[in-house]
Amino acid sequence: MSRFSVTYRIFAASADEANERAAGIALEQTVEIPRDVVPRGYIADEIVGQIESIAEEGDGRYLAKISYSPDSVSDELPQLLNVIFGNSSIQKDLKVVGLELGSTLAERFPGARFGVAGVRRLARRATGGMVCPVIKPQGSDVATLADIAYRCALAGADAIKDDHGLTNQSMAPFKQRCEKISAAVARANRETGGACLYMPNVAGQSADALGYARFAKDCGAGGVVVLPGLFGFDAVRHLARDETFGLPIMTHPSFLGSYVLSDTLGFTHAMMFGTLQRLAGADISIFPNVGGRFGFSAAECVSIADACRDVRGIGRPILPSPGGGMSVDRARDMVRMYGDDAVFLLGGSLLRYGDRIGEAIKLMRDAIAEA
Amino acid sequence: MSRFSVTYRIFAASADEANERAAGIALEQTVEIPRDVVPRGYIADEIVGQIESIAEEGDGRYLAKISYSPDSVSDELPQLLNVIFGNSSIQKDLKVVGLELGSTLAERFPGARFGVAGVRRLARRATGGMVCPVIKPQGSDVATLADIAYRCALAGADAIKDDHGLTNQSMAPFKQRCEKISAAVARANRETGGACLYMPNVAGQSADALGYARFAKDCGAGGVVVLPGLFGFDAVRHLARDETFGLPIMTHPSFLGSYVLSDTLGFTHAMMFGTLQRLAGADISIFPNVGGRFGFSAAECVSIADACRDVRGIGRPILPSPGGGMSVDRARDMVRMYGDDAVFLLGGSLLRYGDRIGEAIKLMRDAIAEA
Repeated sequence: MSRFSVTYRIFAASADEANERAAGIALEQTVEIPRDVVPRGYIADEIVGQIESIAEEGDGRYLAKISYSPDSVSDELPQLLNVIFGNSSIQKDLKVVGLELGSTLAERFPGARFGVAGVRRLARRATGGMVCPVIKPQGSDVATLADIAYRCALAGADAIKDDHGLTNQSMAPFKQRCEKISAAVARANRETGGACLYMPNVAGQSADALGYARFAKDCGAGGVVVLPGLFGFDAVRHLARDETFGLPIMTHPSFLGSYVLSDTLGFTHAMMFGTLQRLAGADISIFPNVGGRFGFSAAECVSIADACRDVRGIGRPILPSPGGGMSVDRARDMVRMYGDDAVFLLGGSLLRYGDRIGEAIKLMRDAIAEA
Repeated sequence: MSRFSVTYRIFAASADEANERAAGIALEQTVEIPRDVVPRGYIADEIVGQIESIAEEGDGRYLAKISYSPDSVSDELPQLLNVIFGNSSIQKDLKVVGLELGSTLAERFPGARFGVAGVRRLARRATGGMVCPVIKPQGSDVATLADIAYRCALAGADAIKDDHGLTNQSMAPFKQRCEKISAAVARANRETGGACLYMPNVAGQSADALGYARFAKDCGAGGVVVLPGLFGFDAVRHLARDETFGLPIMTHPSFLGSYVLSDTLGFTHAMMFGTLQRLAGADISIFPNVGGRFGFSAAECVSIADACRDVRGIGRPILPSPGGGMSVDRARDMVRMYGDDAVFLLGGSLLRYGDRIGEAIKLMRDAIAEA
């Protein structure tokens, strides 16, 4: 059995303090009792976290790599996240910067079902950046949303996603929306010979997620959008592993921002929007692009894309999907920044095109092709 | 229909900037499109967030109260949280400090099933602080954990909870643990004539939560512990509203620390460990006590307790449950700080008493009675 390890960045005034804090984390994340009362034998030797290394990064920053037993986790994702950062999330000056699953947990958490290659195969876009308009706004009726989706699919979108704010509102309830938009996109696909994937946003109560996802599949949807910050990362894993569903999953960062925005708390951007999404089984990971309405830097965005696509990461490489304030004007810059293996979201700015929304999709396709 | 409102603290260089950011939030959390393309009529008038007030607090801090339509939410908790803070969680210098449900959503989200009075009735402790030892450590077998639970119940514990790190590990799988410890606590209750509530920690994959909770009930457990940071807040709501379960729920702060530890991000302590727990339907809200291993201040802890018990809050008042590094020595100070309506957790320090663990419970009871 191979232990897994988590690397924490500890902000401390001295090496002694960093060592002491690392020893505290090793207890906190496992037995959660003082060292002097840890039972000898199996619990002390196997269950308590083990400090594998501590290195100073400079400027009062230390990297502590702590290994844990797969026995602490069994095969449950909530408990794996609990060991990685459950109680330690409540400690200041501590950030998770790395995760190595080891061979034992790599078997239990195989990651994305499709990944980059699988999504490309389904969307029949073997190379080049992928274009994904977002249909909105909340409050629109189903016919309006279906019309937008139809025009976008006809114009060459690779995928179409629901806005993450479209859930089960009476104006466009999930099931009605899913049926009508799936049909509209299927009609466009018949006309173009294409394979645009419509991905509705899984709504409902958390316990309903699989039911909604299966409903979407039955309608002919090409995948689903899931919000791990609200439904839990395990909702993603559940769908990714369910044989009766078996479609790509796109994760959205709603409610997750607080984990990354402080330099000294939570997770790095790459961990949250790359590693953890791969761990859960996402195929496409949405994150806010630099220069939009959110405060991610170019370096942070590139680190996310790298973590999504790193061949040494968990399971299959997945597609980073920058969004938020993206427009056709910025397409070339974005392609230069992210390369080909990315899903470029186009959001609210599309609505400025009105009935000519298909033109915007074509412009985006051209810009990507020329970049 | 009555709109609900969220109060955000915006950190801004000027009133103009604060106004502009508030207007951005009102769009971001609803239609997520630029103002100039918002369709007129219902969407502009009802769906888009409305700035109800903006007031300067001083020092570059502004309080913006924004109201939203219940139509944006329907009756789903993930979507309510999505409107409150979904995408805005990804914005810097923004913190959620208040939530007023309004009458429409108050009906849809009635809060705790038991609350302070209900839990006291079940535990037959009409007045005075309640004592809740935590059984651990992870890696122990079921017989060892059941023996600790038996001794604690016999000595007068009001409730006994699983450590949040006990899930489904092979050393003490949930179902076995739940059966054996429920039986041990029932035996102690028969001997004392008491009504100590055993609350196992809901394990498994997220989709299994209700199944595990029902299993616990069938074993005779007195409630369950749930981790909303890992299973999602809606898992709590689901159990709180399920008629076939119908037992108290204790929530644990695992994985939620990143939402409160920065002054300029996430939620206030009172919102996260008071308001949101009540919204989801928790009866007892655990949080890290001042002076333990975590960095909450006395004022932050008191604000949590106040938010749990405020009669103007969502649904029934609930029990704050300070824990983490609590010991018998600190009992009197804790009772002076939190008053009677609280559940005092006793954790790893209990294990120092070994077979005499019951003495620690009695000492704690005495200290509370004398405080």
